[in-house]
Amino acid sequence: MQFRLVIHGGAGAIKKEKMTPEKEAAYRAALETALRAGCGVLSKGGAALDAVIASIKVMEDSPLFNAGKGAVFNHDGRNELDASLMDGRTLAAGAVTEITTLKNPIVGAHLVMTKSKHVMLAGKGADDFAAAQGAETVSPDYYRTEERWEELQKAKEKEEKEEKDGNKHTSLQLEEKFGTVGAVALDQRGNLAAGTSTGGLTNKRFGRIGDSPIIGAGTYADNESCAVSATGQGEMFIRAVAAHEVSALVKYKKLSVEQAAQVVLDKVHTLGGSGGLIVLDRDGHFTMPFNTDGMYRGTIGPDGKPETAIYR
Amino acid sequence: MQFRLVIHGGAGAIKKEKMTPEKEAAYRAALETALRAGCGVLSKGGAALDAVIASIKVMEDSPLFNAGKGAVFNHDGRNELDASLMDGRTLAAGAVTEITTLKNPIVGAHLVMTKSKHVMLAGKGADDFAAAQGAETVSPDYYRTEERWEELQKAKEKEEKEEKDGNKHTSLQLEEKFGTVGAVALDQRGNLAAGTSTGGLTNKRFGRIGDSPIIGAGTYADNESCAVSATGQGEMFIRAVAAHEVSALVKYKKLSVEQAAQVVLDKVHTLGGSGGLIVLDRDGHFTMPFNTDGMYRGTIGPDGKPETAIYR
Repeated sequence: MQFRLVIHGGAGAIKKEKMTPEKEAAYRAALETALRAGCGVLSKGGAALDAVIASIKVMEDSPLFNAGKGAVFNHDGRNELDASLMDGRTLAAGAVTEITTLKNPIVGAHLVMTKSKHVMLAGKGADDFAAAQGAETVSPDYYRTEERWEELQKAKEKEEKEEKDGNKHTSLQLEEKFGTVGAVALDQRGNLAAGTSTGGLTNKRFGRIGDSPIIGAGTYADNESCAVSATGQGEMFIRAVAAHEVSALVKYKKLSVEQAAQVVLDKVHTLGGSGGLIVLDRDGHFTMPFNTDGMYRGTIGPDGKPETAIYR
Repeated sequence: MQFRLVIHGGAGAIKKEKMTPEKEAAYRAALETALRAGCGVLSKGGAALDAVIASIKVMEDSPLFNAGKGAVFNHDGRNELDASLMDGRTLAAGAVTEITTLKNPIVGAHLVMTKSKHVMLAGKGADDFAAAQGAETVSPDYYRTEERWEELQKAKEKEEKEEKDGNKHTSLQLEEKFGTVGAVALDQRGNLAAGTSTGGLTNKRFGRIGDSPIIGAGTYADNESCAVSATGQGEMFIRAVAAHEVSALVKYKKLSVEQAAQVVLDKVHTLGGSGGLIVLDRDGHFTMPFNTDGMYRGTIGPDGKPETAIYR
């Protein structure tokens, strides 16, 4: 059976005119490294779940994406990370939210899936559980990059200005850049898996949880339909139960993955949201639609040649 | 248009032979009070969303149910409460998790829905946000009932014994009693809404989050299909994305609410889970299936006569 891996590194206001050749090359190289990592698992007959974890780990370790190292800062100047993972063969799932000490939140999600009877653990409890199960821990300053720190300062300045202008709840305003990473894979045994990892929103407050750690919203995988990972304004993806809605449209309305993903992205748009989706079915059909300026994305198959794209 | 309200007060090992007549009467009276509270809203032409909140508040305020006052204790001897709410007309949704100071977590969920741009807030941030928006706060000992405290002590004794016997991860074992409360309503304008509130699992650790605060898993409402609230072993309801799956089966496979709820409950059972669902569509058709010994449940319509049931 033909295997396939599809990844995203976030969607949003990614414009060619604002990108330097060096930065673009760095993103493409990081995406290729992530694709090769997952492909290495799949080409040897490994499981889709392990390929998803392998490729997401690469993106978490890269400072370029809003996941793991390079995660955005919350209002208090800290990093709080979310991740989720699902096995399409068994519908087993794991998720962690408000992680502050794990090098790889996706590994935390995997440990919740495999070593606990729970699906979702939060905060210190999630950190402690994963660490006790052997996950690699880091000090909170591991995640820090100067670019993200400056983004927080700018977001706070903007917020202060808007609050002075009498604009309430600006702290809860949604961003136009989403660096969430995700992967969907089909292995040689015909099994699907999906995973998503993020640092959430810059300047987020009040313990905000987005769609990335929510099974059904940001991540879903079912061998009977498809594997899905989402990125974008999480609130609208939660309200649309986006990942599971794609799966339901494929399973019950017999839509193609292209059709189903577009229907759901249009629904998210109707709700006022933007972002993107990656979807893969058991026949290896995949789609990577987005309704933003760009989405870091890529795919790899049996020929071992990574294909990446950023803009429309 | 005919209105309808359907509620549940949790499913589980509720056996007639273990119930005293006094206790049964108390549960029935509490369910009737909750039904009348919601009916009062609906009969005057009020919104389904407000009816759901009104009936859930009554059950949160009652010490009989595992929500609000009377919530179960976590491993640390504290109460952490979850709730979620969804408006089928707009797909607006709100959810709070790990609440420790709100008298009515469902009010917190409503404030997240209406006063923030977010859908889900967690922990202290959620408490602080809701309090700043005017939600009534209580000291943590407000939730305490002696029965729930004794349940925690028994659970810990059992856990210690099992750990001595070399049984690992017993702290993560799932319970057979679920006191989660929920409501679904159809108002005279033909709008649907759903809500769910819970104290989670006795002796829960590691910041475990169940299905109750997860839009799509424990709660879902869509005027184009139905309104759903779930109770049971939350992990399996998350993996099945149970509430949204019922909605998808009604919307895309054109199943009746009875058929859709049964299909999903069977799926949850296949995954190893037990519990129950309440589902209501725009024609006022409703169903209250469960695969446990009993489920506290009830319904009320235009005749204003509450109907309640507990056992099979």
